Amino acid sequence: MKPLNIGVIGYGFMGRAHSNAFRKVGNFFPLDRKLVLKAACGRDAAKTKAFADTWGYESTTSDWKELIARDDIDLIDIAAPNNVHAEIAIAAAKGGKMILCEKPLAMNPAEAVKMVAAVEKAKVANMVWYNYRRIPAVTLAKELIDAGRLGKIFHYRAKFLQDWTINADVPQGGAGTWRLDASVAGSGVTGDLLAHCIDTALWLNGGIDSVTAMTETFVKERKHALSGKKQKVLIDDASAFLARFSNGSLATFEATRYARGHKALYTFEINGEHGSLCWDLHDLHRLQFFDHRDAGNVRGWRSIHVSDGDQPYMKHWWVPGLQIGYEHSFVHQVADFVAGLSNGQPAAPTFRDGLATDYVTDAVLKSAKSRRWQNVKSARSK
Amino acid sequence: MKPLNIGVIGYGFMGRAHSNAFRKVGNFFPLDRKLVLKAACGRDAAKTKAFADTWGYESTTSDWKELIARDDIDLIDIAAPNNVHAEIAIAAAKGGKMILCEKPLAMNPAEAVKMVAAVEKAKVANMVWYNYRRIPAVTLAKELIDAGRLGKIFHYRAKFLQDWTINADVPQGGAGTWRLDASVAGSGVTGDLLAHCIDTALWLNGGIDSVTAMTETFVKERKHALSGKKQKVLIDDASAFLARFSNGSLATFEATRYARGHKALYTFEINGEHGSLCWDLHDLHRLQFFDHRDAGNVRGWRSIHVSDGDQPYMKHWWVPGLQIGYEHSFVHQVADFVAGLSNGQPAAPTFRDGLATDYVTDAVLKSAKSRRWQNVKSARSK
Amino acid sequence: MKPLNIGVIGYGFMGRAHSNAFRKVGNFFPLDRKLVLKAACGRDAAKTKAFADTWGYESTTSDWKELIARDDIDLIDIAAPNNVHAEIAIAAAKGGKMILCEKPLAMNPAEAVKMVAAVEKAKVANMVWYNYRRIPAVTLAKELIDAGRLGKIFHYRAKFLQDWTINADVPQGGAGTWRLDASVAGSGVTGDLLAHCIDTALWLNGGIDSVTAMTETFVKERKHALSGKKQKVLIDDASAFLARFSNGSLATFEATRYARGHKALYTFEINGEHGSLCWDLHDLHRLQFFDHRDAGNVRGWRSIHVSDGDQPYMKHWWVPGLQIGYEHSFVHQVADFVAGLSNGQPAAPTFRDGLATDYVTDAVLKSAKSRRWQNVKSARSK
Amino acid sequence: MKPLNIGVIGYGFMGRAHSNAFRKVGNFFPLDRKLVLKAACGRDAAKTKAFADTWGYESTTSDWKELIARDDIDLIDIAAPNNVHAEIAIAAAKGGKMILCEKPLAMNPAEAVKMVAAVEKAKVANMVWYNYRRIPAVTLAKELIDAGRLGKIFHYRAKFLQDWTINADVPQGGAGTWRLDASVAGSGVTGDLLAHCIDTALWLNGGIDSVTAMTETFVKERKHALSGKKQKVLIDDASAFLARFSNGSLATFEATRYARGHKALYTFEINGEHGSLCWDLHDLHRLQFFDHRDAGNVRGWRSIHVSDGDQPYMKHWWVPGLQIGYEHSFVHQVADFVAGLSNGQPAAPTFRDGLATDYVTDAVLKSAKSRRWQNVKSARSK
Repeated sequence: MKPLNIGVIGYGFMGRAHSNAFRKVGNFFPLDRKLVLKAACGRDAAKTKAFADTWGYESTTSDWKELIARDDIDLIDIAAPNNVHAEIAIAAAKGGKMILCEKPLAMNPAEAVKMVAAVEKAKVANMVWYNYRRIPAVTLAKELIDAGRLGKIFHYRAKFLQDWTINADVPQGGAGTWRLDASVAGSGVTGDLLAHCIDTALWLNGGIDSVTAMTETFVKERKHALSGKKQKVLIDDASAFLARFSNGSLATFEATRYARGHKALYTFEINGEHGSLCWDLHDLHRLQFFDHRDAGNVRGWRSIHVSDGDQPYMKHWWVPGLQIGYEHSFVHQVADFVAGLSNGQPAAPTFRDGLATDYVTDAVLKSAKSRRWQNVKSARSK
Repeated sequence: MKPLNIGVIGYGFMGRAHSNAFRKVGNFFPLDRKLVLKAACGRDAAKTKAFADTWGYESTTSDWKELIARDDIDLIDIAAPNNVHAEIAIAAAKGGKMILCEKPLAMNPAEAVKMVAAVEKAKVANMVWYNYRRIPAVTLAKELIDAGRLGKIFHYRAKFLQDWTINADVPQGGAGTWRLDASVAGSGVTGDLLAHCIDTALWLNGGIDSVTAMTETFVKERKHALSGKKQKVLIDDASAFLARFSNGSLATFEATRYARGHKALYTFEINGEHGSLCWDLHDLHRLQFFDHRDAGNVRGWRSIHVSDGDQPYMKHWWVPGLQIGYEHSFVHQVADFVAGLSNGQPAAPTFRDGLATDYVTDAVLKSAKSRRWQNVKSARSK
Repeated sequence: MKPLNIGVIGYGFMGRAHSNAFRKVGNFFPLDRKLVLKAACGRDAAKTKAFADTWGYESTTSDWKELIARDDIDLIDIAAPNNVHAEIAIAAAKGGKMILCEKPLAMNPAEAVKMVAAVEKAKVANMVWYNYRRIPAVTLAKELIDAGRLGKIFHYRAKFLQDWTINADVPQGGAGTWRLDASVAGSGVTGDLLAHCIDTALWLNGGIDSVTAMTETFVKERKHALSGKKQKVLIDDASAFLARFSNGSLATFEATRYARGHKALYTFEINGEHGSLCWDLHDLHRLQFFDHRDAGNVRGWRSIHVSDGDQPYMKHWWVPGLQIGYEHSFVHQVADFVAGLSNGQPAAPTFRDGLATDYVTDAVLKSAKSRRWQNVKSARSK
Repeated sequence: MKPLNIGVIGYGFMGRAHSNAFRKVGNFFPLDRKLVLKAACGRDAAKTKAFADTWGYESTTSDWKELIARDDIDLIDIAAPNNVHAEIAIAAAKGGKMILCEKPLAMNPAEAVKMVAAVEKAKVANMVWYNYRRIPAVTLAKELIDAGRLGKIFHYRAKFLQDWTINADVPQGGAGTWRLDASVAGSGVTGDLLAHCIDTALWLNGGIDSVTAMTETFVKERKHALSGKKQKVLIDDASAFLARFSNGSLATFEATRYARGHKALYTFEINGEHGSLCWDLHDLHRLQFFDHRDAGNVRGWRSIHVSDGDQPYMKHWWVPGLQIGYEHSFVHQVADFVAGLSNGQPAAPTFRDGLATDYVTDAVLKSAKSRRWQNVKSARSK
């Protein structure tokens, strides 16, 4: 079996999630490439070494350019903070590497456009880690929608609620908290959390035409984790918007890190003429489905425990009734990516799909400033 | 419209529940009799008077025999403690009165047999207040079972969990706590709570052949509410049994007043070849239904919000989505009782049905003592 | 006990809900006035008569002015469609009658302002039937918020989802469907459903400063129920808005009659520094409460079954664990209204509170047209 | 780091689950031994080879005695059917190998006693794969009970419901269906499913004194998967029992493969003086906790999303809110087993703990036959 040599950049939360997927996918999915953990790259040499030891990477470096220059690396996995995605990805594309890039694709659409151009010019396989598409319950939702089970769509609503930054002592910047530092993250919950909601929504319900938004920063100043100095907080702590989809449906979206009681409650609901679907990340193995075509007296929301072999991805795991978890969505994404290399159907979301999400988050942030409805650019028309 | 003159005996919890039903049923259900609250009877004259004033009873007495003797009373409603059911009911039957009797029917099957004989001899309309049959979700369960939606039945399980007597300071005897006094209540949770579970089970799943049971009294002594003296507790605090139904299905039943966190959690589940049903009193307006004949990838337990006009009893209430509560089951029972007076189909459960339940609770109590399987007598064969 | 003579105008859904409350409240709540169902008024004489017979009204009329002119009527209950609220209420106030008025208070703020002026000038007791405040779980939410259990508030979100008008054959106008006729209803879901959400929100979370909204009419034409002619639909089928409260919190609101699977799913959630609350009308007897001050390893959303005597209103009903339903909120409202007549604390929401809600719905409708953020007028400053 | 060389026997469902745990544990837990997948053993050479390739076992064999004879194997993992546990385990103990054995420990207590004797004589580390103890929510339950959060225990109830053998065409014997063949499995749901319930119960609530049980075989004959011949079914399809624990609490237990709608619904509930706990395998990442010491008006069942770093095992995985799944319980068991090798506290359940469960299942099967209460032997007294 031909090897697929991987070089990962970043050893944080996402570095672990991706590495686990790379190591594990072959145990459960039939692949025609053998994934090899070739090299790990990170700023801190000691941490990079420890990470490589834990996961079995063969070598380490602190220079990502070196990684790209190596002939024995086929794929660059970008698990580093948002502010370095563009430079690395563009260089990797020029170097002819396949690229997996963490979400959001870029700091802004301008960067993202260049990244898309680079990978499309280089014709390298590319994908963004919007992993939630491949939670089996979410994939099942997609199948039901595509099969017409909902009919004409009237409503979409999504939210992503967390509560980990309510404490004003949480710093900005640094290892675990760079997502609060606008210079590294680009934006706050809009790019971090709403981006997930938007990616799923565009996949399930098509394009968004226009939005009106509001954002808020509840804690105005935070210490920087590295400098220790109080600095103005420039990210959005909370972000909400109304939207109109191209298919005529209306939507509400909301994300925040100030919703007490919710750790990572990403939830979406979609209402159509014939039925509705609802999903939530805190019980990710379930899909709620209402089928109006059931007989009137026994209609009800079905709580589908997505753990059977005839449901997406599940035949590769255990037996009916035994649930999988968060990390498995990454395994599925790798399995589909590898399959896409040879079957002529590149796995989505590609960088171009990631750009589409960036256009929406950009419109959201602009609307929050302008206090006007903002049209959303299309990523489809070049 | 011909009046139906009612005399109630008892002004406690059940006296209120019945009175509310009598007063209210005509506002929501078309009846061909006009219910008249003619007289209230109770031991304490002042309390009886206050009760009559609150509910609009025309007169009061503290002598139930006087009530039975009155020509202008058509129906005797027995809302008094268990130890007086038999005497009153037999006298009322002899007096030619219709009788509604609180559950359990009697202190023991011997009493119950006499009560059945009395009403059947007198040919008076009779019914036991097993009100849960007429929670719309429970009635819907019955309809689905009768329509064959579950197929062959394999399992039945029911429990009734409360937690109000954990505190050893709760007395026995007296107004609110006579259910802990064996001389008044007959038994503890077996007659009080399991009786409800059994009545529903017999209705939904047919007869029970045999049982093996255990009971326990966790608090061995309690003060008597009236005498203030510590007395041995003679009721069962908890009771559980295994059962075999005549249709070949297996069952588990349990009731207790020591299940912390449950106020009145009566729940049943029934599993058949093609589907299953589950209901619980804490969310009484919902029925859970699993239909195995749904397509495999979208099978799931449906949470049916029983509040639509095409669901049992609900067209008489509000609009879809607006739930009714506990008290409405009594209203439905009165509506059906009155309808049964003229349509030739006497409403169940009759006294004979109540006897069937008493035979099961009797077998349960006997098995708990004998530590043997106990056969259950049939109430059908005269 | 001094009588409180009631004349009701309207025999539809709300006429029944109010009448049930008037009849029933004295059975459960100690009142110092005896409610008397004196007269019922409606356009159709036969229907009015049948309604009066069912509920026990002593007399009927089809002329509401006659009702107001009667000396033996103390209170006018307006259960008629929105387009007649103002005229009747202003006349009733001039006639010195107490007034209970269905929600929304008026067709628009201009009317509502006049109604407020009329009752305040006449110094008559007045209240709007926003009944959901008095669902015990909602009242408990209010108590917890007022006790500071949530701390500083960051987020509020509410929605009211129905699905009964998806079928394009549902007519507009007429008895059951006047809510689709803009000339009678004023607006669609904004005045009908969002008004409920807004009333609760203003009560729980204080004033709203500004909103940005969108509305949609999915079915563009419907037959008129009376004329049979197809007419343009002028109401909003769906309405959503973002809001900023005066206390700095952010909110999303949404209502629709096109959310398949939801009959009357009014739900709200409020997130504060120390805790969060969540409630939903489909399980109205439960309140979800997350208390961040619970120990870290056992924190979780508590599902509070609001059926105990130490929870709002519940000591007047049954025993712990036995739930009440939708209709009981009206009973509570009447109990509080009557208590307010003598205790010097008039029950809310008053007409002035109703005006505050009308100002918000007006801003929502204006914003949906202007596509701009709209400031909300205050009902407090005269 | 010193290697821990593993030889696995069996390549089925459990062979996969164990292998996944062995491969993965070092990526997430700090260990002082390096787990090496040394050899895989199975009857079918080709399947064994494929299994070894998938999971990275260095070598294969079809002779388990050869495996035990190898000096470079430290640990024998028995993932083969029940009827070979005893012979292999006893030989492995004699060979001085550590042993991990699938549950139930043996075909009957007689076998289990010998196995316990063998490992205790050989002083080899030993453990039974009752993995559910190490679902984080279950471990948290144990911690809360041990900390006295429930107080005196009154009730325990557990059930394990499946529905995969309702179809009479499911064969007995063979690869996926040996659990229906009594000669291989020993018993049906009693040893397969109830054993899990019992292991957890003994751990959480102490010893069981006596039981009364019933079992049933709904489908009387099934084809054998290998011979194709119809044979009498000798296993129990369903099994239920009442129990009394040494601590005075009462229990109900039930398992079946005929509960339509439940794939693998293992659920337990425990009720104590101060609180209650409830867990279910279909939502394994949640623990329900009722704390009676919460203030009366805000008491409710807390749904604890066990995904935080301060909850058992979770700091090794992702971030709060992101759930793990079924397979992780095996990883935890391996982590604890390896830690137990050096910290002087051997991880439980040991073979002796496994014997305790076998004594209960044996009493259950005997009671079902004798129709009498049966005392349970203690595994503690040698």
